[in-house]
Amino acid sequence: MSFWIGVDVGGTNIVCGIVNEKGEVLDSVKKPTEASLGSSSVLDKIAQMSLELAAGSGLQNQVAGIGIGIPGLVDPWKGIAQYSANLNWRDIPLSSELTQRTSLPVYIDNDVRMYVYGEAVYGAGQGVDFVLGLTIGTGLSAAMVNRGQLYYGHLNLAGEIGHGPMDGESAPCGCGFEGCLEAAASASGMVREAKRYIHQGRKTILTEWFPGERLQYLSAADLSKAMDAGDVLAAEIINHAGELLGKALVPTIHLLSPEVIIIGGGGANAGERLLTTVRGILMTRLLPDYRQHVSIRTASLGDGAGVIGSAMQAKQRHSIMS
Amino acid sequence: MSFWIGVDVGGTNIVCGIVNEKGEVLDSVKKPTEASLGSSSVLDKIAQMSLELAAGSGLQNQVAGIGIGIPGLVDPWKGIAQYSANLNWRDIPLSSELTQRTSLPVYIDNDVRMYVYGEAVYGAGQGVDFVLGLTIGTGLSAAMVNRGQLYYGHLNLAGEIGHGPMDGESAPCGCGFEGCLEAAASASGMVREAKRYIHQGRKTILTEWFPGERLQYLSAADLSKAMDAGDVLAAEIINHAGELLGKALVPTIHLLSPEVIIIGGGGANAGERLLTTVRGILMTRLLPDYRQHVSIRTASLGDGAGVIGSAMQAKQRHSIMS
Repeated sequence: MSFWIGVDVGGTNIVCGIVNEKGEVLDSVKKPTEASLGSSSVLDKIAQMSLELAAGSGLQNQVAGIGIGIPGLVDPWKGIAQYSANLNWRDIPLSSELTQRTSLPVYIDNDVRMYVYGEAVYGAGQGVDFVLGLTIGTGLSAAMVNRGQLYYGHLNLAGEIGHGPMDGESAPCGCGFEGCLEAAASASGMVREAKRYIHQGRKTILTEWFPGERLQYLSAADLSKAMDAGDVLAAEIINHAGELLGKALVPTIHLLSPEVIIIGGGGANAGERLLTTVRGILMTRLLPDYRQHVSIRTASLGDGAGVIGSAMQAKQRHSIMS
Repeated sequence: MSFWIGVDVGGTNIVCGIVNEKGEVLDSVKKPTEASLGSSSVLDKIAQMSLELAAGSGLQNQVAGIGIGIPGLVDPWKGIAQYSANLNWRDIPLSSELTQRTSLPVYIDNDVRMYVYGEAVYGAGQGVDFVLGLTIGTGLSAAMVNRGQLYYGHLNLAGEIGHGPMDGESAPCGCGFEGCLEAAASASGMVREAKRYIHQGRKTILTEWFPGERLQYLSAADLSKAMDAGDVLAAEIINHAGELLGKALVPTIHLLSPEVIIIGGGGANAGERLLTTVRGILMTRLLPDYRQHVSIRTASLGDGAGVIGSAMQAKQRHSIMS
């Protein structure tokens, strides 16, 4: 049996796990990314975490390789992290640099694709042929896994379901457009919308929970809590997010016919608060064949999805290469 | 060298062609479908046309198989035409029935997929890895060809880009919804919209060209002619179709990152009249990476795309099987 190291590199933390061939995490470790120290320092840290984890588990001789998920634009085939705003990286030859440091084969990819791959093959999409996965967090992105194979598109650019102005919408988005799905339905977008309404003087329990400057600590989880406490504004924001998500999914489902849609990322913690609205839109706007055959689920692997996906994608790519 | 028969079965005509391994049509024949005579009669006709074409070309000993494109829902793997409204067919075991009649292997698929496959691999998408093709005719559908492989989705239901209500739109659609892309942007939809406006009393040159009951003969090509003649209503309808098409393509491009989008079918004859508007929407609503890397083209194989696609898809599937 061989083992694989999966690494999920985020703007805040690096999570590194050792994963067996069944996609089970045997052990994992988390450290702050400290991207401000520069890419070389981050690479040293990834290498060190990986090697220590392998040694600590006593499996260092059975670790076959490392898989890494990076936020931003990645060329998985050349092993280059092309652009990452979160890490402030541009054209880092990640695979070769880490192979030098660890003497292991290293496979890299985009973090959303790794998360969705993990969920599609080892989590909520297990056994399903056509899976579309969405991550709702700081951003809102998607990836597609067809019969166990990730879809990349031209220049590996597939997955940006969160952008492009939607008719009748006006929330400003980080991408420069207004009215993007991400601006209203990502976890960060929902929080930003809440703050915007609060600054406009809307009444909400959130101003009691987060008075004055404490409003900066407001999170998407707090919106869920406020909705449960009967807060109208929080419900409005979450419902609106669900409505836009549903509207974006209707043409996507008709075009791609996924069997299962997995909703993951921090925003997925809103769970049924969000999905009830999404399902309502799908029920009224999908053609009968699709309405009957598509199901929407929340992710099942929690934070481990990225680590599992990265490790198992490395395993898959390694088996094709060798 | 082997040869393949490609058959494009439409509600009005059956076109049957003999195609070489390079995807070139050597000879073809067209006959009325006469679906009202029943499926068995249509099958007899397809078999007869195929065998006569093979014999007439003197290549009957080198014909390796038959590929057929059918409008409607098809199970290509079981060889069953599951449902076709145009032909009034339900669960016809097309492949086995035609193999019985011709002693040749028969591969069937949906007609839009065969058309797009032909264009993607032998026409406007030649040499391109990620192709999205749209056919604008009686309906408005799509198919995706990734590295030469068609995408099917769960239950082979992928491709229905034309349905689902769009915000702010209200044109009634054949599917039962209102405001679908197909209702406003298919060739038939544009004609239906023109008639609707004319019945509302809108002034247009079309009422001079098609007075009274002659309005029933109005076609999408006439709308193009009227637009060229400076007719405001015709321009409005075609521009509106282009606008909705662009709006539908924006999230599709962000999600799938096709390199080339091919617009085919009768409605594609509107050409730049339609595509200028589509491109305008894409320019203002796509993220820069996609704006720079996607191109929109009209189909290049004309009516032959369906025959070529069916024949060459049969060749591809046969080579995998044997």
